[in-house]
Order: sequence, then structure tokens, then C-alpha cells
Amino acid sequence: MSVFTTVTPDEAEAWLKRYTVGTLVELKGIASGIENTNYFLTTGHGRYVLTLFEILRHDELPYFLNLMDHLARHGVPCPQPLADIDNALLATLNDKPASIVSCLAGRALEHPDAAHCAQVGEVLADIHLAGKTYPQQRDNPRGTAWWKATAQQLAAVLDSAAAVLLADEIRFQALHRLQDLPRGVIHADLFRDNVLFDGERLSGVIDFYFACHDVWLYDVAITVNDWCVLPDGSLDSERTLALLQAYHAVRPFTPIERGAWPVMLRAAALRFWVSRLYDLHFPRAGEMTHAKDPGHFQRILQQRIAAQSALQRLWV
Amino acid sequence: MSVFTTVTPDEAEAWLKRYTVGTLVELKGIASGIENTNYFLTTGHGRYVLTLFEILRHDELPYFLNLMDHLARHGVPCPQPLADIDNALLATLNDKPASIVSCLAGRALEHPDAAHCAQVGEVLADIHLAGKTYPQQRDNPRGTAWWKATAQQLAAVLDSAAAVLLADEIRFQALHRLQDLPRGVIHADLFRDNVLFDGERLSGVIDFYFACHDVWLYDVAITVNDWCVLPDGSLDSERTLALLQAYHAVRPFTPIERGAWPVMLRAAALRFWVSRLYDLHFPRAGEMTHAKDPGHFQRILQQRIAAQSALQRLWV
Repeated sequence: MSVFTTVTPDEAEAWLKRYTVGTLVELKGIASGIENTNYFLTTGHGRYVLTLFEILRHDELPYFLNLMDHLARHGVPCPQPLADIDNALLATLNDKPASIVSCLAGRALEHPDAAHCAQVGEVLADIHLAGKTYPQQRDNPRGTAWWKATAQQLAAVLDSAAAVLLADEIRFQALHRLQDLPRGVIHADLFRDNVLFDGERLSGVIDFYFACHDVWLYDVAITVNDWCVLPDGSLDSERTLALLQAYHAVRPFTPIERGAWPVMLRAAALRFWVSRLYDLHFPRAGEMTHAKDPGHFQRILQQRIAAQSALQRLWV
Repeated sequence: MSVFTTVTPDEAEAWLKRYTVGTLVELKGIASGIENTNYFLTTGHGRYVLTLFEILRHDELPYFLNLMDHLARHGVPCPQPLADIDNALLATLNDKPASIVSCLAGRALEHPDAAHCAQVGEVLADIHLAGKTYPQQRDNPRGTAWWKATAQQLAAVLDSAAAVLLADEIRFQALHRLQDLPRGVIHADLFRDNVLFDGERLSGVIDFYFACHDVWLYDVAITVNDWCVLPDGSLDSERTLALLQAYHAVRPFTPIERGAWPVMLRAAALRFWVSRLYDLHFPRAGEMTHAKDPGHFQRILQQRIAAQSALQRLWV
């Protein structure tokens, strides 16, 4: 259950006077999501999602909300935050930072095919291109400095094989300079559960709260590592090529990106292996057990290391 | 037929590379509208309207396009212009200023009932409130200076009864100071053909190309004169009250607005009587006959003058 902060219909009705979206028709808690309180909010003008942010702070949110507004204005199918009568996308409700965003149709897919992956590749390139004129900038809080520091914390709790793999991979990544790879706004978490399909058509990209400024190809690698993976951690060639080709048709890859591709796939696997290890071994106080299996990304990383030269050929 | 400038699918496909809305699925001319070329444009991301502006100039358009963007961001159901990869809402296609806007569902109503009028009143108040933070300003090109100058041109072609009525009304309006009435962004043309209903629900407000900065109550009067009118030009009490009450619930009227209400209804009738007379007697060169009957607004004006004191009581 993800309603951590209760909002009554009377409170919502009063709060809606800040907005120009009509009066309250229905308010209904959403029982998914593990970080925020979410309600479906229906008004005279349509269907929205009301979010009360339980962890992100008021000063951190404008980057994400303005980014969603920017991308929606560019035709990227993502939640668009509503501006209130003071023209602000963010307000306070029941002592929490709160926002109303447009509600998107569709549901997440567990078993995407190549046609779905192509749509994901296209929309990711759209996000990268549309983000070029986004004026705000946010460093990646899960970048190299973070995984180095986190790996030190993890050293004591890992078995020796995992500890060696982790130390080796961090060393390997440090040897590869990424300065020349094109970069800009990245979603940084475009997993299957953050993309909605309405029938066969991609209808929404959600959860921009890891978005930041980083290497575009790294974002592609994060996405491919989830959308195109086989049970053994290796990549499905058909889905991978479909995703890369559709991306390439919108934002053509540069020659230097081809060379960096296998390294980026390893970096993307490393980043999620480290965060899952951390969540498992150092859960937040009071947090329920939502930790996902780190072994999944350990296998992916091992597979990417083993397949390095084959991955060089899995390209558009 | 309203396609004055042809756009081929190949031209549309090439032009879409400026945007991040997917590739072209379908392009279809729209056979309505008398000023612009409009196409339904379906892309991988959804359904849009492509407009090539045939009369409005490149330097006039940002006010309107930015206003639609501003209102859409506030939850007003209106076409939202797409930003291109340079973050511009306006571009050039086949030598015409051009824009892509979101496509709204629904159709215009000819015979609205009180429930429809209430929704129109509400959305008009939403537009006025949301417009408070709109930074650009545009004077009303159809204001008192315009109707005075136009009446002089018309004097020679009107019969004497109409000429006297026109001169008298312009004199009457000049005696009433509007300085203290609240003002801001107004739609200025919220007739039945500019509002879409999807079933019983208001789904869109369109055609913002008369929008400007003027008296809010004047905008209400323009709207009431069309939505709540009976065949003899008088107002239907039930629809009028429904519209005014719904507006008042969102943006409460001030006491001074009550006093100005009958004068504003006359001003709103005058403005459209004058423009219809002008279009009839001085058609644009090469224009097809789209001129609407000026007599309709002459009757409305005469009825508002005759019913002045009764209109004072038709209020919330």
C-alpha cells in the first residue's frame, strides 16, 4: 500500500482551488509505488495523478517536474505536471511537497517483443533530443564517485568472489574515459516498469526521479540491459537490434559510441548491481523489504564481461 | 475546403524531423476553417493538428501559441503547441508560419443546454484565472478605437435606422468608464463553434486568435450573447444563470461587475455587429463569401438595450 499520507476528499477539494482544472469528481489511493503517496484524481477536466513526495525534498523536485513539463511540451508521452494559479508546478499539501500530473493510459509489459523494444528505443532518443534545450542541470548521483564509495562500504559484507568482481569492474571502468561521448539529459532508469503500453502502442514513460545529465549511450545501455535481456543475463539479438536501430533512426550514433558500447553495457550493469547490493545490505531504517535481487545484475555484468567482443558486433 | 497550401506526406515526414513525436503515420487535410490550412497529422506518438497560418504573420503568432501552451499547462483543455528540437512552438513550412498542436476530441454543439453552459462558464473563469500569470500582453484590436473608426467607414453604407443605432451605441459605450473592472487575458471569441464536447463533457476550447488583454466581464458577455441566446435575440434565463453561476464559483464576480453587466452585454453585441457589417460590406479581396448575418447581432443589441433593467436582475 503506497498511501503514506492520507488526503481526504475535502482536503483535495480545497486544494484544487489552487488549480484551474475543475472541481473534484473522485479521489482514489493508488496501491503501488514504494516511495511516494499517489492518488488518482478525477476532476471536471479529466484524470490526473496527485503525488505527495515522501522522500524527495522541495528543493530537489523542480528539476524533475520542469523536465517532465519540458518533455511533454515536446510530445514525449510522459506525465505533465499542472501549473497552479501562481504558475508553480509544485505546492505543499498536508506538509508534503505535492504535485498534480496528467494521467497516462496503459500498463507496463513484462515480456516485450522486438516491436515494443523499437518503440522504447525511439522514445529514448526523443528524450535525449528534446532534452538538449532543457536549461537545468543535475549531476548523476549514481556516478563513478558513488559506486566507488559504495563499493568500499560493501567490501565487508560481500563474499570474496563478488568483492573481487566488484573491485575489478570499478577499476576497469576507471580506465575508460567517457569525456568524448555525447551527453545530455538521461532518464537513467528506463526499465520495463517505467514504460506504459496501451495495447501495442507505447503510451507513457514515467518515473523521472533518477533523471540527470550524463552520457546518452549509458542511458541506452541501462535500457537494453533490462528490455533485451534473456534469463541467463545475455542479450537477445533481435530485441537489442530493434531498440538500437529505432534509437539510431532518431538520434544517429557516432563512431565513438560504437567503440564504447560494450563498456557502457558493463557500466550500466555495475550501477544497478551496486545499488541493489546496497539496498539489500543497508536497508533504510523502517523500510519494508522491497530489495530486489542483486544477483540478477551480477549475472548480467559477468555475462557482459564474457561477451565483450561479441557485444562489439551487436550494433547498428 | 480549407487547404490553401498543400503539404505532401514527404514534406511532412521531413519536417517532423524537427520534432520528437515519432514518424508520420497519416496526413489528412481538414475541410473546415476559413483562415488557415489545417491537417490532421498522426505520428507514432498520437494525433495532432498541423496548421499553416495563411493570414497571421510570424511576429503575431507567439502571443497566441505561448498562450495556448500556458493555458494547457494549467489544465485548460485547449490545443497545446508542440515545441521542436530548438524549443520553438513556431516554425516555417512551405513558406508559411506553421505549428503542430495536440488534437482534441469532441465536436461543437449547436443547441447547448444549461449543463453545457455551466461547463463553458467554468472553463472561461479557468482561462481568466490561469491567464493571470501569462507574461505577454496584447491590446484588443477590436476595442473602442476600432469600432469608432469602423463605424465611420460603415456610415455611408448603412440604412438610416442602423446608422443611428450604431452611432447612439458607440456614444453610450463611450460614456461608461471600464477602468475599474477586473481585466486580464480574454478569449474574446468563445462562441459555440469554438468549444468542443465529447459526449456531455466539455473537451476543448479552440481558436485563440482573437485573445487579448481586456475586461473579463466583456468576455463573459461575448460568451453569454452566443451560448444563452433565444431566436428573438433575448437571453434564456436558465442557461444564462447556469453559465454565470459556474463562472462565479471559480472566479467570484465583484460588486462593480454586477452594475456593468448590461452595458457589457451591449458592448459585446456591438463589437460583433460592427465586425459582421464590415465583413459584409468590405470583404477582403478574393475572399469567398463567408460573411455571417449582421442582423443577428443588431437584434441582440436592440434586445439588450430594451431589456437593460431586466438584465440587471439576471445575475448571480
